[in-house]
Order: sequence, then C-alpha cells, then structure tokens
Amino acid sequence: MSEMLKVAVLGAKGRMGTAAVAAINAAQDMELVAALGRADSLDVLLERGAQVIVDLTVPDSTEANIHFAVEHGIHAVVGTTGWDAARLAALEALLAKHPETGVLIAPNFALGSVLATRFAAQAARYFDSVEIIELHHPRKVDAPSGTALRTAQLVAAARAAAGVPDAPDATETELDGARGASIDGIPVHSVRLAGLVAHQEVLLGSHGEALTIRHDSFNHESFMPGVLLGVRTVGSRPGLTVGLDGYMDLDG
Amino acid sequence: MSEMLKVAVLGAKGRMGTAAVAAINAAQDMELVAALGRADSLDVLLERGAQVIVDLTVPDSTEANIHFAVEHGIHAVVGTTGWDAARLAALEALLAKHPETGVLIAPNFALGSVLATRFAAQAARYFDSVEIIELHHPRKVDAPSGTALRTAQLVAAARAAAGVPDAPDATETELDGARGASIDGIPVHSVRLAGLVAHQEVLLGSHGEALTIRHDSFNHESFMPGVLLGVRTVGSRPGLTVGLDGYMDLDG
Amino acid sequence: MSEMLKVAVLGAKGRMGTAAVAAINAAQDMELVAALGRADSLDVLLERGAQVIVDLTVPDSTEANIHFAVEHGIHAVVGTTGWDAARLAALEALLAKHPETGVLIAPNFALGSVLATRFAAQAARYFDSVEIIELHHPRKVDAPSGTALRTAQLVAAARAAAGVPDAPDATETELDGARGASIDGIPVHSVRLAGLVAHQEVLLGSHGEALTIRHDSFNHESFMPGVLLGVRTVGSRPGLTVGLDGYMDLDG
Amino acid sequence: MSEMLKVAVLGAKGRMGTAAVAAINAAQDMELVAALGRADSLDVLLERGAQVIVDLTVPDSTEANIHFAVEHGIHAVVGTTGWDAARLAALEALLAKHPETGVLIAPNFALGSVLATRFAAQAARYFDSVEIIELHHPRKVDAPSGTALRTAQLVAAARAAAGVPDAPDATETELDGARGASIDGIPVHSVRLAGLVAHQEVLLGSHGEALTIRHDSFNHESFMPGVLLGVRTVGSRPGLTVGLDGYMDLDG
Repeated sequence: MSEMLKVAVLGAKGRMGTAAVAAINAAQDMELVAALGRADSLDVLLERGAQVIVDLTVPDSTEANIHFAVEHGIHAVVGTTGWDAARLAALEALLAKHPETGVLIAPNFALGSVLATRFAAQAARYFDSVEIIELHHPRKVDAPSGTALRTAQLVAAARAAAGVPDAPDATETELDGARGASIDGIPVHSVRLAGLVAHQEVLLGSHGEALTIRHDSFNHESFMPGVLLGVRTVGSRPGLTVGLDGYMDLDG
Repeated sequence: MSEMLKVAVLGAKGRMGTAAVAAINAAQDMELVAALGRADSLDVLLERGAQVIVDLTVPDSTEANIHFAVEHGIHAVVGTTGWDAARLAALEALLAKHPETGVLIAPNFALGSVLATRFAAQAARYFDSVEIIELHHPRKVDAPSGTALRTAQLVAAARAAAGVPDAPDATETELDGARGASIDGIPVHSVRLAGLVAHQEVLLGSHGEALTIRHDSFNHESFMPGVLLGVRTVGSRPGLTVGLDGYMDLDG
Repeated sequence: MSEMLKVAVLGAKGRMGTAAVAAINAAQDMELVAALGRADSLDVLLERGAQVIVDLTVPDSTEANIHFAVEHGIHAVVGTTGWDAARLAALEALLAKHPETGVLIAPNFALGSVLATRFAAQAARYFDSVEIIELHHPRKVDAPSGTALRTAQLVAAARAAAGVPDAPDATETELDGARGASIDGIPVHSVRLAGLVAHQEVLLGSHGEALTIRHDSFNHESFMPGVLLGVRTVGSRPGLTVGLDGYMDLDG
Repeated sequence: MSEMLKVAVLGAKGRMGTAAVAAINAAQDMELVAALGRADSLDVLLERGAQVIVDLTVPDSTEANIHFAVEHGIHAVVGTTGWDAARLAALEALLAKHPETGVLIAPNFALGSVLATRFAAQAARYFDSVEIIELHHPRKVDAPSGTALRTAQLVAAARAAAGVPDAPDATETELDGARGASIDGIPVHSVRLAGLVAHQEVLLGSHGEALTIRHDSFNHESFMPGVLLGVRTVGSRPGLTVGLDGYMDLDG
C-alpha cells in the first residue's frame, strides 16, 4: 500500500479552511497532520512532518508562510490572494535555491471555472464577438466579479495577439449602462439576483453560430476537488506554477 | 364548408408585408383579396370586399388607413407603430360609432414574445429580484430593445402595485455600466453578438430558487402565427384591443 | 397593531418541517404555537389555540390530521402527498359541514415551480412542439421527476382541449431512449448530474421562435415563501383549494 | 500585394457548395477558378490552375476527386462524408508519394461546434458526470445527431483513458427512455422542436459545480469561416489532417 501524503492546512478555521480540512480528512490518500489557525506556530509543520501545506490564510501572512515552507522543503498549494509581481519574483528567487520544492498559486480552485476561463480564451480569436455575463447573489459588493474581469482580460489579450478586429456593434442610442462595462473592449454584464450563487457565461458569436461556455458554482464544496488535485500534484512539479490549469492535462 | 375570410394586406411590399402575404396565401381559411403598396388606393378594399385588413405600413399612414377601414365596417389588425395616446383616443371615439367593428393594435405578433412578457409581469411580484437580459444581432441601433423596455416597465408596475420592495443589491464598487441600465428600477442588460437574432431572458429570483422566461426569435416567420390569430379573431371582438394577449385564452 | 396568526407545524422534525418551523418563527406576523412530532397528541392544537396548521407529515397520518383540524375549525395547509380522489372527496364532504374552514393541498410550495408549470400549461396550445427537460442530482431514484410528470400531463391536456395536432417529428432511426419518455405524447428527458439540485425546462417551439420556461431550485428554503403565502391566505379561502396557484393573483 | 489563392469548388450546386462559392467569392485573398457540378470534368482544375479544391460532393465520388487532386499536387479541403478506415489508409499511402500536398478531412466546419466537441472531451475527465442534450428542428430523421454521437464517444474515451469511474446514478424506477440513449455509457438526449435549427449542450457536473458547453448553429453560413480557414491553411500542412481543430491554435 502506498504511503499517505502528510498534509497541513493553514487558515483552517476560515470557511475555505474548514472545507479543506474536511476534504483532506475524506481523501483516501492523504493524512491531515495539522490544522493551524492564526495563533499557531509554523514549527508544528516540522514536528508533524508535513509534506504539503495548503495556505488559505490572508494576504498579510501568506508570503511568510510560503517562504517558511519552501525553506524547509515543504511543497505549498496557495489559495490566498495578494501575490503581486514583487512577491512572485521573490518567491521564484527563493525556489531557485530549493529546486526540488513546488509551489502552486491558484486564484481559483473550481475546476469548472478554471476550464471555462481557459476555453474562453482559446476560442476567443475564432469569433467575431465575445461578451460576458456573470450572475451572483445580491450580497456581492463588487461588479463585475474578479473572475469575469480576469476572463475578459485574457479574452481581450488573445484577440489582440491574433489581430482580431473589434466586435461589430451598430448601437447608436443607448440607455446608460445597457451595453455593460467594457473591460479591454469586452462587454461584461453583472446580474445580482436573489437565489443565485455564482455563475458565469461567456458568449462567443460569429456568422450564424454561437458558442456559450457557462460555469455554475452551487456551493463552496466546488473548490475542493481542485485543492486535492493541487495537493496530489505539487510534489511532482518543482518551481512555481500559477493557475490550476498548469496541472491539468489539456492537450488531448 | 365555411366561407373563406377575405383579407387584404397594406404595406405588402415591406419585409413584414411580404411574409404576411405568404402566410395568408398559405392559410386554408383565408383568401387574399388585395396586397396594397404605398401608391395604391384604399378603394380597392371596397371593390374586393375585404373583411379584414392587416396594416403593416408606416406611422405616417396607419391612422388614415385604420379610420378608412372602420368607417367602412372592415376589421383591422395593426402592426404599425406610432399609435400614441391621442391617436388611440380618436380611434376609440370612431369605434364607438361603429360598434360592430374590431381593431387589434399589437406592438408584437410573436406569440412566444407576447406570452413571455405577460408571464414575466404576472410572476414579478412573487420574487425578490428581477433582471432582464436581451440579446440581439450587432446591427441593432438601440439598446435596450423596445421589447425589453416594455417588459421592464410592466414588471416594475406590477411590483409597485403589489408593494414589493426594491430588489436587494449590496454593490459598493461598480465598473461603469456593469449593472446594466435601470428601467424603473429593473436592471436591463443588452448583449450584441454576431450570429444571434433576437432573444430575451427575464430572470426572477428568490430564496433558493430562480425562474427564467426566455424567448428566442430565430427569424421573421415567427410573427406570422400571431398575425393569423389576429385576423381570425378580430371580427368577433368589436372595439379596440391593444396587445395580442387580449385574444389569447390564458385563464386555464 | 394586528394580532399574530397562531400557527402549528405537524411533522416538525422532518427536513421540511424543520425549515417550516424556522420560517414561521422568522415571520413577523405569525406565532408558532406548536411543533408536533409523530408521538404528540393533536389536542395540543386546541390547548394552544392554533388557527392554522401546516401538515408536513406522511401519507398515513395526513388524512386524520386534516379531518381533526377541520372538525375544530382550524385551517390547514398541506404539503403531504397521498391525497387521492377518494380522500379528496371525503374531505370536501367534511368541509361542506364546516363552511368557514379552509384547506390548501399543495403538491409543490416553490412559487417559481408552481408558476412555471402554470405558464407552460397556458402557453402549450400556442406552439407546434413542447418538450420537457428535468435535471436533478444523481441521488434521485425516479425518472422523470414527479413535477415533470405533472407538467407533461397538464401540457398534454391543454393541447388536447384546444385541438392542437401532435408535434411534428420526422425521426426514422432512433437509438433506444434518445427521444425521451413519452408522457401523454409529450417527450420528457431526465438528466442526472453531480452538482445539480433540482431544475426543469419546458421548451415550446413554433415557426421560427421558441419559448423556454426554466425553474431552478437551489435549496429547500425555496419552499418556504410558498408555505407562508399559504398560511396567510388559507383563512380567507373557505373550502378546498388544490394547488398554490389558486392563491396567487395571476389575472393582471 | 500577395497573390490570390486559386480555389475550385466541387459539388458547387448543392446547398453547402452554393454557400462555399459565395464565401470564396467574398474572400479578399481568394479567387474562385471553378465551380464544378456532377457532370463536369476534373481536367478543368488543371486548365484553371486550381491550387486548392473544396470537395462538397457525395460519398460515391469524393475518393476519386481527392486522389485526382493529390496526384496533381492540388491541396484539398473535404467536407464530404464516407471516409472509412480503408479509404483513409489508401489516401495516406498516396500522400506519402506526394509529400508536399495537404488534405484536410473535416466532419464539421462550424468552428464553434469543433471547439465545443474538443473542450468537452478535454474537460470530461475532471467531472463526476457528463450528459449531452442535442436539440434540432423536427425534420431531422436520426436521433441522436451525428455530432452528439461523436462527442459522446470522445468524452467516453477520455474518461476511460483517465480511469474515471461511471457517473453516479441512483435511478431505480424509470419510464422507458427518460434517461436518454447511452453512448458508451454517456447519456444523450435528443429534443426535436419546431423553430429550432441545430444546438448541442454538453453538461459536466461535480461537487457543487457544473460546466455547460453549448453550441448553437442558426444557419448554414456558420460553416463558411471554417471552410475558409481550411482553404487558407491546407497548403502549409502537408499530409493528412482529420478534423478542423488540427488547424486551430489551441495551446494558449
């Protein structure tokens, strides 16, 4: 029988952390060796022999956590935000000195959402028009969503790289806001509706056809298969990987 | 065997008129007795014994056409726009003197669209949130579409009449336009996408559920069943009816 | 200030009952006077002065519960299944002797689902084709769902009553099952997909257009607004009402 | 200025051929040098100096056409069906003797459909459940559609290769046909609805999330961008390529 992978969760008391603890406990091939909160010492990771950490803490503490892990040869899967260019550069410099250690920084762990964004970016150059509709519960404070912003930027960049002209649009009279927000030229529409959770549609259209890529997130469990995929894979991918799709086999 | 209904089309050379002529010719229970263009005299209607006219002309001529018909006891089905409150009042006064003649003025003949608007207005008071997404080909010059505007107004009026509070919306930071245009408080989002024709979704949401009413118009034939329903019914509905749903049996 | 409505829940320990207790406790205009389980005596209803009961028990006990309530002038909102024609007839006979008491028997309390079914039945006669797709979590044991069956039956009955011919279908070669189950001639397709909850689409199509009525139930809270609407209304509707849409204002 | 590409269409009188002739005439970088029907001699291709042929004929004649082209160093884009394993092997043997000539055999030229199938196959291994719904006009004689069959086979093969277990399904009582046709274990549901054209949805679900990939084909123009992409690319891709996605840049 193969050895169990020793995993620790940092930020284990938060909503995401609680779900990660449950998912790791339920995984047949993993052993949860530590579930650390804000006040706990990272030395516990060494005492318990953690091989992989899952960091779901806060922007203020994630960098120190990851540097500690890398310096001790512990692989890291990071869901915390706040990794700007300077932090990424410092981390890459550190990883260069620990060439067998892997770090995954993933802005999104929902496999369906990661795939939806990737497919949208790949398809974008082959259509005349692209627009994005994101739909969320009405407690959300920002519009558009971060995922929609990122998708629009990737779509726009792919179209620019392929030399695709602007989408046709004959609008002459518009009520303010009807055509959505423009993100690098891609219209993004934000719906806020009681009952919904988190949903996104990318609509691509051309000459008599349309392709729609829709992702529905019904609850926070949806992130856990992606976290487990990260934990299982990070040990075999030394260096820094940004984005969970870097661990997915999408050549077929 | 029952007598054929004698029908004339005014504005028979336009896109809608051409389709109406074809639909009436194909109908087993109708006889097309005249297909008039801009220059033709209305006296032809009398010579040919028209019982019902279908007016698909232009705002400038529709009022004179309909008055002529009513004065001669010919029923009228009107798809032309431009019937403001003053024109409607004058028409009702005229109809009062011709109590056996019927006129239908319909802003939309697509049965599915008429039903979608009606259902949205009926359901609106039972949900916390309502938003509208309309999607059209990119040659359309106005945003939102006229149908979306009218739907939003009816939805807003139904909610106001029932005392429904504003939909919840915690948005604090918004990129300009992301939350759509506000029509009487109902957000309306306009997508313009190559490949599409004319589509509308009304999304209603509340406590763990959503109801979506979507209408797709794939081509202009979609208007013809509604025109034929109007032609068949107008003779038995004296006076003025506005909106094709007035002729539909929706109590069941 | 208006008096609070005194409400009792029967079957208060079940999943639906637990949610109903919470919803009534949260309602400003209601007082929960009893939450009864299987072993509790119905006499508690009289001691506490219950004005309305919500019955969410089991088919074996619901008839006795409702007869007890009606005999004591307590109005009843019933979500329990098992009310066949014989039971309904017996209840109507009993209500005839208690002409001021009201009973609502509702197979479904989700307002959106009730509206979706009603709208589908109303629209069915105006389209050439109707098909139903229902989508549920993969733990569901029956296919199609009860709601889809009932919707198909109502749609088929409405089309038969209006003399609508069978939907066109040129299928010559079919892999077994591809065209779905036929319920009174209406094709019904059942999807079972991990991640989903409970969803239904009725697709209606004709001459270049389609109307789609979709209901999404994301969680069991979706039933509670319908239960509260029933509790608030039942006292003013003596006699038997079957179906929550009987309490909704849908003439507008 | 760059030279125009000299293109000939075979099967130019058919519905697809007519559209291809129009598309090539409209393309700025192509010159239509021949539009051949059933009775025309292939020698015209040589007389007019055709560099690329587009074969939209019938299964009986496509093989001879393509061999003729390859033997004369003319590249070929093939939309005709009927290329079984034996024909493909013979063509590859012939191409081995003409190493600078390219042939594209594409079962589908709609870019959106090609992408939808590819994305579905790539994503299939990352979800617990996959089902396919295809929706077409009611004049279609086969169910499921050929595209749905092919998509299901690719999805099933991808899941088998990755060792994904069967999708969960607790169905115990099923009305015959409700759960669709099973293609290599993937349920496929076929809707036939007046008004529709050609549409397909692949639904993928897992742990609280769903990914839906939908393609809508609104008219036959949708095939033309794919045909033009094939014509422009085939000259730079010697040997045999099966599937238009082989010419698309999808690594990004």
